[in-house]
Amino acid sequence: MLSKPQIRTITSLQHKKFRKESGLFIVEGAKSLTEFIRSDYLVQHIFYTPQAVAKLGKIPQNIKSDEIGEQDLKRISTLKNPQGVLGLIHIPDYPPLTAAELRDGFHLVLDNIQDPGNLGTIIRTAEWFGFSRIICSEDSVDAYNPKVVQASMGSLARMKVYYADIEALIAGAPLPVFGAVLNGSSLYDTDFGREGLIVLGNEGKGIRETLLSRIEHRVTIPQVGRAESLNVAVSAALFCAELARKK
Amino acid sequence: MLSKPQIRTITSLQHKKFRKESGLFIVEGAKSLTEFIRSDYLVQHIFYTPQAVAKLGKIPQNIKSDEIGEQDLKRISTLKNPQGVLGLIHIPDYPPLTAAELRDGFHLVLDNIQDPGNLGTIIRTAEWFGFSRIICSEDSVDAYNPKVVQASMGSLARMKVYYADIEALIAGAPLPVFGAVLNGSSLYDTDFGREGLIVLGNEGKGIRETLLSRIEHRVTIPQVGRAESLNVAVSAALFCAELARKK
Repeated sequence: MLSKPQIRTITSLQHKKFRKESGLFIVEGAKSLTEFIRSDYLVQHIFYTPQAVAKLGKIPQNIKSDEIGEQDLKRISTLKNPQGVLGLIHIPDYPPLTAAELRDGFHLVLDNIQDPGNLGTIIRTAEWFGFSRIICSEDSVDAYNPKVVQASMGSLARMKVYYADIEALIAGAPLPVFGAVLNGSSLYDTDFGREGLIVLGNEGKGIRETLLSRIEHRVTIPQVGRAESLNVAVSAALFCAELARKK
Repeated sequence: MLSKPQIRTITSLQHKKFRKESGLFIVEGAKSLTEFIRSDYLVQHIFYTPQAVAKLGKIPQNIKSDEIGEQDLKRISTLKNPQGVLGLIHIPDYPPLTAAELRDGFHLVLDNIQDPGNLGTIIRTAEWFGFSRIICSEDSVDAYNPKVVQASMGSLARMKVYYADIEALIAGAPLPVFGAVLNGSSLYDTDFGREGLIVLGNEGKGIRETLLSRIEHRVTIPQVGRAESLNVAVSAALFCAELARKK
């Protein structure tokens, strides 16, 4: 059985402040957790119910694990329908991207993305199309938010998400900068070359003014109907697909 | 001020059962509501706070409207951050699609889509790419669910969403049937011709077995990385974009 302080500590990880303090985040579900166990992430602790442990397979010996009751799992879960398995994982601390890393193909740069479902979906989609790093502005939603982890469907295990001063990064990067906007040239006619940054803006406001002036290539997804804009995860997908296709 | 029964009636519309009974659904926010006022939908009643009414512009005389306090708006709102404007709108009752309508270009056919955010995003994206009708299986999430309406960002005002026995519809349709699957031929190499049904499956389970056998053209979005699958709204977007591009 879990003690009250244990439950309090784990549920506190739903808040960014406590994730920062402890350096831990939550992953739920056997499928996602298995992907983190197999990844470069460091899994600190796994909690499982007797009913769910079979779905998880053998837990490596170096990972602490505890069987708990369904009621306890419900108490620490972030989900409406808890999946019987919950892991605490160390938040990685990446050194800033080097110039060489930045010049290795394309990177999505997310400006103030707020919706955790959007960020999770972008991580999942970017991984599908072969990206391994994403750069977020410091005011974007935290990638270790449980809803982001959930929406990424395990892809976060293989995606490095960097938080950076993206204005400085873009100003200092000797790279073509492309931005998803509503009145640019067609995505399909854009010559992306071999490397570059792809900037995608906030859900409501788009790319911030101070960044817009630094974007050399304004790119638009050609529209047929009358919808005012596209969801940012959808825009990201269309850019990722096009880059993968042109490659 | 709203009476308790009024508040109860309006909040009941968050549930499909009461939407069916009353034939009404909720739209919030001046931007979305304006799009419904301008559309073929019939707006029954608008509630607004004095602070928000300016955003809405002139309300047509044939629409009932009432100024209410912020507290009352909060009580009837489905949003964490109410937007000062809430409308009740009649759910349209479309006659079943005719054969001629079905043969008019392409239609998305959604098999048991469950997440309201996904359906809303699909409606928004499909409208961007020029689609005007979507067909959902009867067990899909209700298009008039407030979360679907919200995620569609006003696009529902210009999109007809049909609910149908999609197995019978597909069996009876003299049309090519394409399905989004994980092991088909490339989306980019597929010759879609001029008309057809594009079937997209449930978030967890994909397209149901009994439908799969009726799908002549199994189509896959080419993958580069290792993610196991794509979000269904992302898949829908990539199909819509490709169809619009080939046209």
